Amino acid sequence: MESAIDTHLKCPRTLSRRVPDDYQPPFPMWVARADASLQQVVMAYLGVQYDDPERRGDALAALRTIVGTFDGPDGPVHHDLTHHVDNRDHHNLMVVAYWADPAAYGRWLRSEAVAGWWESDDRLHDGLGHFREVVAPRVDQFETLYAFQEQLPGVGAVMGGISGDINEHGYWGSMRERFPISQTDWMQSNGGLTVVEGDPAAGGRVVVRGHDNIALIRSGQEWIEAGEEERSLYLDEIQPTLEAGMDFLRDNGESVGCYSNRYVHSIDLDGNPIDESYNIGHWSSLDKLERWAESHPTHLRIFTTFFRVAEGLDKLRLYHEVSVSSGSEQLFEYVNCHPGTGMLRDARVASNA
Amino acid sequence: MESAIDTHLKCPRTLSRRVPDDYQPPFPMWVARADASLQQVVMAYLGVQYDDPERRGDALAALRTIVGTFDGPDGPVHHDLTHHVDNRDHHNLMVVAYWADPAAYGRWLRSEAVAGWWESDDRLHDGLGHFREVVAPRVDQFETLYAFQEQLPGVGAVMGGISGDINEHGYWGSMRERFPISQTDWMQSNGGLTVVEGDPAAGGRVVVRGHDNIALIRSGQEWIEAGEEERSLYLDEIQPTLEAGMDFLRDNGESVGCYSNRYVHSIDLDGNPIDESYNIGHWSSLDKLERWAESHPTHLRIFTTFFRVAEGLDKLRLYHEVSVSSGSEQLFEYVNCHPGTGMLRDARVASNA
Repeated sequence: MESAIDTHLKCPRTLSRRVPDDYQPPFPMWVARADASLQQVVMAYLGVQYDDPERRGDALAALRTIVGTFDGPDGPVHHDLTHHVDNRDHHNLMVVAYWADPAAYGRWLRSEAVAGWWESDDRLHDGLGHFREVVAPRVDQFETLYAFQEQLPGVGAVMGGISGDINEHGYWGSMRERFPISQTDWMQSNGGLTVVEGDPAAGGRVVVRGHDNIALIRSGQEWIEAGEEERSLYLDEIQPTLEAGMDFLRDNGESVGCYSNRYVHSIDLDGNPIDESYNIGHWSSLDKLERWAESHPTHLRIFTTFFRVAEGLDKLRLYHEVSVSSGSEQLFEYVNCHPGTGMLRDARVASNA
Repeated sequence: MESAIDTHLKCPRTLSRRVPDDYQPPFPMWVARADASLQQVVMAYLGVQYDDPERRGDALAALRTIVGTFDGPDGPVHHDLTHHVDNRDHHNLMVVAYWADPAAYGRWLRSEAVAGWWESDDRLHDGLGHFREVVAPRVDQFETLYAFQEQLPGVGAVMGGISGDINEHGYWGSMRERFPISQTDWMQSNGGLTVVEGDPAAGGRVVVRGHDNIALIRSGQEWIEAGEEERSLYLDEIQPTLEAGMDFLRDNGESVGCYSNRYVHSIDLDGNPIDESYNIGHWSSLDKLERWAESHPTHLRIFTTFFRVAEGLDKLRLYHEVSVSSGSEQLFEYVNCHPGTGMLRDARVASNA
């Protein structure tokens, strides 16, 4: 049994845990481990949006253009692709890309292939929406949790290693306690979202400024290798409840502090679905996410189902990664996206009056 | 908004809360307040057990004998009466009595009417089982929570006052955080239950020694004044789930750290039922109670139902009180009770070998 907080990230606590030192989790879970040289990661959600299904080919081409920029020394360490239809019936293709080196990400972002493409007036007129939502948490600002130990998805693929059984799971508050920074910091929000360029209602280019400690959760399900029994467990028991909870957050997020919630399905480069899905939720703060998770019936049902089956899981892969980031390490940019996209919905237009 | 921890019980924290300072509960709740002169209370669960329904008259007479000893200056400040059938089909009548002055309780306990009656050989031969389970928590060792503000039951009746809206509720961990001692102490168990006199399997007189920080919860429901709608909410939605959870704890408590769980129905001195019930649970430690409450489907369903309706509650009265006590401030004594009674089930017979 080891701590979710890696040895080199331990520090003298000013904030205590919720559970006593002799706490024993009810089943084993694992976290990703990285070399101590890893300081900060970049998580970039790069999206293409389209309304008319006939635009699908163009959108997939745009997605492939983005993925094409990943070749070369400054590209991300890892990426994957998704599709989802949002609550305004728009289709969204996304690639999430992970860098282990913010400097490489910066060079990639400023490269002609990326900056030139993004800044081109073609983006305003190609009939597609485009967005990029990027956060760069330091290693003390994120945590992971896996019910398996191999071929970690998401940020785990960047980190490269896996822990032994960890102690901090199985109780409400354990997510927070897996964050190294929770030893000394409450991760509190210091404001709301602000439109700093453009007008979401008008379309065109819009830039939103975030704030400290926006929390981002990626919570995933991979049933691609699952046998009959686990497949049925997932599709019949977990997925319907999961969808109900994710729909609630998508449609009512503002009431609970969830800025954006996208339940996405993995795809390949041609847009074909893969038996993997995940949810991407942006929250105004970690404690808002905690409150929802621990009190909403749909999430509690997912939680109790997981408790019931966790020890018997074989090929069904459930995991999550949660980060907070400094306001200065966030980028939320949109081109011709509908005003309910991502951070746009809850962003206030700064008044110049 | 005020803290559940009364001003005179605040102290510099060595343990932090789970939620940030700006936490706002989703609906109002209240705690009992006492004068600063209150130092320690005594909670005495005094029981009469019988197998054969024909013994009911004798058992009620014994209950009335106990209540009769409450007259006079050393009697308890408050008491109430209950009945329940346990999982060995024995009937149990209980009076729970609360003292605000442990010295008065001590004088009552040593009085001829009480000590003489308890120690008499008649108790061994009156065809009834008898038990007394007494804990005496200091004021920093218990907390309360009410969804109403008047005519507080249980220990609230002893304390006499009510707070304003309190901050520490609506999240897992808030129960712990309402304990004044949680500011500096984990309330950890230091052992298990031990039979120190007699043999539960043989009947007769048995004494069990407890240990530090046994947690005792009384969790109550009063629907006596409820109108049609609330009555239906309680009887149709809350009660069936509550019963399922309480049955689980009664029958499987050992697996989760619950020594004893009694879901009891209030009665008058003649044994007639009143539309009030409560659960009395003894736990090996507060954290075991926390783990069960926050992860068991039945309790989560109660919790989410309460969340849903809390603000609309009118006459349906839901509340709880939870204490921990020092091993030296506990008394667990049994006469001719079946070996599944109270602390007997999980108590280990001390080996003299």
